[in-house]
Amino acid sequence: AFREEFLEVHPYDQARFYVSQEQDVRQQISSYLSPSEMAELFHNLDSEDQESTLEEMEPAYVADMLAQMYADDAVDVLNELEKDQVVSYLTIMDDEAAQEIKDLLHYEEKTAGSIMTTEFVAILANHTIKNAMKILKSEAPDAETIYYIYVVDDEERLVGVISLRDLIIADDDKLISEVMNDRVVSVSVSEDQEHVARMMKDYDFLAVPVLDFQRHLLGIITVDDILDVMEEEASEDYSKLAGVPNFESQDHSAFSAARKRLPWLIILLFLGMFTASLIGRFEEILSQVSILAVFIPLIAGMAGNTGTQALAVAVRGIAIGDGDRKSKMQMLRKEIGTGLIIGFVCGILVMIVVDLWKHNIVLGMLVGVAIFTTLTISTMSGALIPLLMHKLKIDPAVASGPFITTLNDIISVLIYFGLATLLMNYLV
Amino acid sequence: AFREEFLEVHPYDQARFYVSQEQDVRQQISSYLSPSEMAELFHNLDSEDQESTLEEMEPAYVADMLAQMYADDAVDVLNELEKDQVVSYLTIMDDEAAQEIKDLLHYEEKTAGSIMTTEFVAILANHTIKNAMKILKSEAPDAETIYYIYVVDDEERLVGVISLRDLIIADDDKLISEVMNDRVVSVSVSEDQEHVARMMKDYDFLAVPVLDFQRHLLGIITVDDILDVMEEEASEDYSKLAGVPNFESQDHSAFSAARKRLPWLIILLFLGMFTASLIGRFEEILSQVSILAVFIPLIAGMAGNTGTQALAVAVRGIAIGDGDRKSKMQMLRKEIGTGLIIGFVCGILVMIVVDLWKHNIVLGMLVGVAIFTTLTISTMSGALIPLLMHKLKIDPAVASGPFITTLNDIISVLIYFGLATLLMNYLV
Ligand SMILES: [Mg+2]
Ligand SMILES: [Mg+2]
Ligand SMILES: [Mg+2]
Ligand SMILES: [Mg+2]
Ligand SMILES: [Mg+2]
Ligand SMILES: [Mg+2]
Ligand SMILES: [Mg+2]
Ligand SMILES: [Mg+2]
Ligand SMILES: [Mg+2]
Ligand SMILES: [Mg+2]
Ligand SMILES: [Mg+2]
Ligand SMILES: [Mg+2]
Ligand SMILES: [Mg+2]
Repeated sequence: AFREEFLEVHPYDQARFYVSQEQDVRQQISSYLSPSEMAELFHNLDSEDQESTLEEMEPAYVADMLAQMYADDAVDVLNELEKDQVVSYLTIMDDEAAQEIKDLLHYEEKTAGSIMTTEFVAILANHTIKNAMKILKSEAPDAETIYYIYVVDDEERLVGVISLRDLIIADDDKLISEVMNDRVVSVSVSEDQEHVARMMKDYDFLAVPVLDFQRHLLGIITVDDILDVMEEEASEDYSKLAGVPNFESQDHSAFSAARKRLPWLIILLFLGMFTASLIGRFEEILSQVSILAVFIPLIAGMAGNTGTQALAVAVRGIAIGDGDRKSKMQMLRKEIGTGLIIGFVCGILVMIVVDLWKHNIVLGMLVGVAIFTTLTISTMSGALIPLLMHKLKIDPAVASGPFITTLNDIISVLIYFGLATLLMNYLV
Repeated sequence: AFREEFLEVHPYDQARFYVSQEQDVRQQISSYLSPSEMAELFHNLDSEDQESTLEEMEPAYVADMLAQMYADDAVDVLNELEKDQVVSYLTIMDDEAAQEIKDLLHYEEKTAGSIMTTEFVAILANHTIKNAMKILKSEAPDAETIYYIYVVDDEERLVGVISLRDLIIADDDKLISEVMNDRVVSVSVSEDQEHVARMMKDYDFLAVPVLDFQRHLLGIITVDDILDVMEEEASEDYSKLAGVPNFESQDHSAFSAARKRLPWLIILLFLGMFTASLIGRFEEILSQVSILAVFIPLIAGMAGNTGTQALAVAVRGIAIGDGDRKSKMQMLRKEIGTGLIIGFVCGILVMIVVDLWKHNIVLGMLVGVAIFTTLTISTMSGALIPLLMHKLKIDPAVASGPFITTLNDIISVLIYFGLATLLMNYLV
């Protein structure tokens, strides 16, 4: 009765129960489940748990289970393993399944090919609706989705698509070619997964067909995998903005977390040292007008804040507008305007406050003008850098917040002390 | 022939063509299209374009079109309009559709209720499969999805669900009650949309039923709307981290962009002024040891960087782990460890570099210890603040990067000058 009870709950909940148990209970559970039942549970484990629990099972059972999984999910599992492990599982696996998986393993990470699966329903256009329905029923148990039926010619080139909804509504005797939609929206196998996600979101598809250059139907990408892609890409952009090199695999130890964050921090540390050496050149003036030091964090900090804002707006703008040239020029022009306004308002404010506080109009003007200039420049550069990266075909989202901030530290220090040197005579 | 050609392309592409035209062409297009055809196009426009093009159409046509849209999409359109406009459209609309829309308009933004639709297929459990299939065919043209059929009792309480896939495979003569899944995963109508999105992602659903407290079936949420939710929530978190108050509606003018960003910046400006006043208290020591000023941006900058990293990791960790208490304590402990390691490594590095550069071991130690202390504290506080916010039921993602950075400026300045004061005698 445990088996029946267990199989009644959703595989996601089965998976959560499974990992929460000790190894011996897990092995008992897997002894109750057929490889295909285990496949459903297993694809709901996260990759760390997949890796560790795989070792508790018999290799033959694992191979069977992988063959029963949808090919894209099996590929996800194998991608986390050592090369020799992959080979050994593929060797004992049934040949057809192994070949399907091998084909998918070749596609580059984060492309359409890497997230597609080969378990789709395809038929020829000269079938009747009734016939198609029959084919569908027989293929239903193995297909990842039966809600779209893809229509191919006899060279397996995609010529149309029909949804199950339209199939159900249509007359039994009509031909597929009469009711199918022949303007199929598809993606190329080498397309970036992010672009596929955007398409799915725009067109509200449940699946999208993946084609090679000759329009052969290679596979489909289903919406459940697109939800994972969106999560992954959002997480990537978020981590880049914060200067954390990705947190896809959560770190459980302080050492591994520190090891991930330190390389970036050490680069930033040396950039900071460079900033320090720049200020060092103004030690003379600093020793005479020590009040100057008081405003360093304010100016550098505000430059960092405005630069990060502009960066984020530009990165999002590029992602959404998907960047035609005109809109990019527009964006840049807008950011320059925004920087000028922000710089002006903050500059005036600072001037007034400093003047009221220190009763020193020259100092007030110095700090105010420095704020005005640095905020304008940092806003502009915050937008310009991702735009340039996009032009150079680099993902603009890799422009990290801390990097922009540190860059703006340097700019702001130069402007502030440059101005101070000019005004030296009035300050002392 | 234009009409036929036009209707053959996907509504998303129709919408892009439609907005790219001048007003007179748009009006001609809408004269060709029935309200229900227009409804499909219209729901693919972004909200700004919806608002502006709505005014070009006859009110009666608009009301018809809104009635033909899925209720959730109609609600999205109306939510962007002025109250009196909403009322006037609802008044001329057919009563049943108006009532459905009115009900949905009541739900709070960003809850399950606000994104659900009422066009689902529900049947009683005592139907045969064959019968159910017939009902499905007749309801197919109006339902948002027919791929899940929800089973209700005669008080409209949800008792089961069956997918169209299972329906197609099942024997014609069986009863729904025999084949349905009675362990339905559902959400409550007041549930946060972000939680619904996570569920859809975990369970790989195409739609999820929405219930009230008595388990009455109120509506369903479909996966295409969840893609929009994920985009919206990711965009929100990203903008918060950058300190930009949301960029959902892209700003086309520098003025509106500046107006959005300035309030935050002005708060940060005054926080920066506060930091300046803190440093001002150490002017005495600064005038004697002016070299101290040189390292201010380095220390404050590094504190900001590590704080932002810790913040981002904690916000993501909370979002993913969905926060049980144990894992939160674990996270905090891990971040303290990470901060200590990062602080130690960076502190030693800085000490060596400063010593080599300035040939001043006391200064090197001062800056090194300041870096060690501030990085440890800023990492810890970067994690602690979102954890506390989560505890206080505030969305931790609103903890903005610039705010944490500015806070860390203050902490780092206090530590640095505090230490300098202690070491004063050895520095001069
Ligand atoms: Mg398979
Ligand atoms: Mg996958
Ligand atoms: Mg990418
Ligand atoms: Mg959509
Ligand atoms: Mg899949
Ligand atoms: Mg999947
Ligand atoms: Mg990306
Ligand atoms: Mg409706
Ligand atoms: Mg909606
Ligand atoms: Mg939320
Ligand atoms: Mg999933
Ligand atoms: Mg919808
Ligand atoms: Mg959120």
